[in-house]
Amino acid sequence: MSRTRVHNFSISLDGFATGEGLSLDAPFGHAGQRLHEWVFATSFWREQSGEMTDSAGDVPSPRSGNHIGAGVDDAFARLFAPGIGAEIMGSRKFGPPGWHEDPEWRGWWGANPPFHTPVYVLTHHERPPLEMDGGTTFHFLDTSPKEALERAREGAEGRDVRIGGGPTTVREFLAADLIDHLHVVQVPILLGRGVRLWDGLEDLQDSYEVEATSSPSGVTHLTFDRS
Amino acid sequence: MSRTRVHNFSISLDGFATGEGLSLDAPFGHAGQRLHEWVFATSFWREQSGEMTDSAGDVPSPRSGNHIGAGVDDAFARLFAPGIGAEIMGSRKFGPPGWHEDPEWRGWWGANPPFHTPVYVLTHHERPPLEMDGGTTFHFLDTSPKEALERAREGAEGRDVRIGGGPTTVREFLAADLIDHLHVVQVPILLGRGVRLWDGLEDLQDSYEVEATSSPSGVTHLTFDRS
Repeated sequence: MSRTRVHNFSISLDGFATGEGLSLDAPFGHAGQRLHEWVFATSFWREQSGEMTDSAGDVPSPRSGNHIGAGVDDAFARLFAPGIGAEIMGSRKFGPPGWHEDPEWRGWWGANPPFHTPVYVLTHHERPPLEMDGGTTFHFLDTSPKEALERAREGAEGRDVRIGGGPTTVREFLAADLIDHLHVVQVPILLGRGVRLWDGLEDLQDSYEVEATSSPSGVTHLTFDRS
Repeated sequence: MSRTRVHNFSISLDGFATGEGLSLDAPFGHAGQRLHEWVFATSFWREQSGEMTDSAGDVPSPRSGNHIGAGVDDAFARLFAPGIGAEIMGSRKFGPPGWHEDPEWRGWWGANPPFHTPVYVLTHHERPPLEMDGGTTFHFLDTSPKEALERAREGAEGRDVRIGGGPTTVREFLAADLIDHLHVVQVPILLGRGVRLWDGLEDLQDSYEVEATSSPSGVTHLTFDRS
């Protein structure tokens, strides 16, 4: 059966998944890259970025200088793609505020985005599908989480659907009881402001098996699996 | 040198240290005992509660039925008392809303509270000191965190001072840069509402070494040590 999954979704200790002040130069606002340094240190990421940039992907680990990146963080990170047939993302993941006014905007990810499947972008500003290299096609939908999931399931042809973020989108899918697997990576920083993941999800844990795994990198992996 | 420490301070995944609706019958409001089940399962707690109740302290573990309770949760829990010479607590830890209107209120903990040191209660309603069995004396102070800490350091006679909570009090001491060691226990539940620990503490981690340790019980121990 096709499942709905969230992977590598980073939040601060105080629950923020993005900072304040999102812009073209600061996709995560004042958070900068701090929520994602853990993934930059994985060999998974170096392979991904090498693929995107055609370079060796020499991204140093901010914590350890360790370029092997094959521990628990890497193991979790690699669950991102296998079995996934489509992604759904929110408008605020696809571009900076106002991207819909730019007819040339094609996402943050260059000519060959790291999705390689249909991607359904939830937006009040629909536009024609955008076919990219490497199998990614962006579709723009002005619809509810539930209907978007139905569309994405068709596009996924029996495989799973990833909910790609941002936090408002993940929260809406959780609130609508549409997520089967949630992988959250808690990074040991306090952002103080931004957009929270957990608001309004009282007793969410009752529907899931929850597991916490701390990593030598300092992050804690939280998994919620529908019980 | 006398340090300022916080121990066994439990919060939910969404950062709440108490729920809503605090009362005499519900000291943690709608959170009930869920934030503290991890400590009830430790042998540390059974010894403490045995001491308080004069019984064998048969407190079952809510998760495992395991009555040994000697793992990582117990190791952290036992750091509560050694080296401590005084505690500071907020008004809302000492009693339910309105306790100051009851001249007979002597705290939640019975005749022999588990502190065994001077305890400084921050309150706008001062009253004379209250001497309990077992070495605990409650002092009632209407003053700032900084001045309360000076008083408590005198009372601690060179030993460390524990900041006992609740969340508003811990947050005020953190914001005033008065905490040397912070031990937070993150419990895998979402309370949705209540009083948050982390609000307004952006970049707190910059002053500390932070470590995360997940436990087989499901909780994650976070320690902040002044760097």
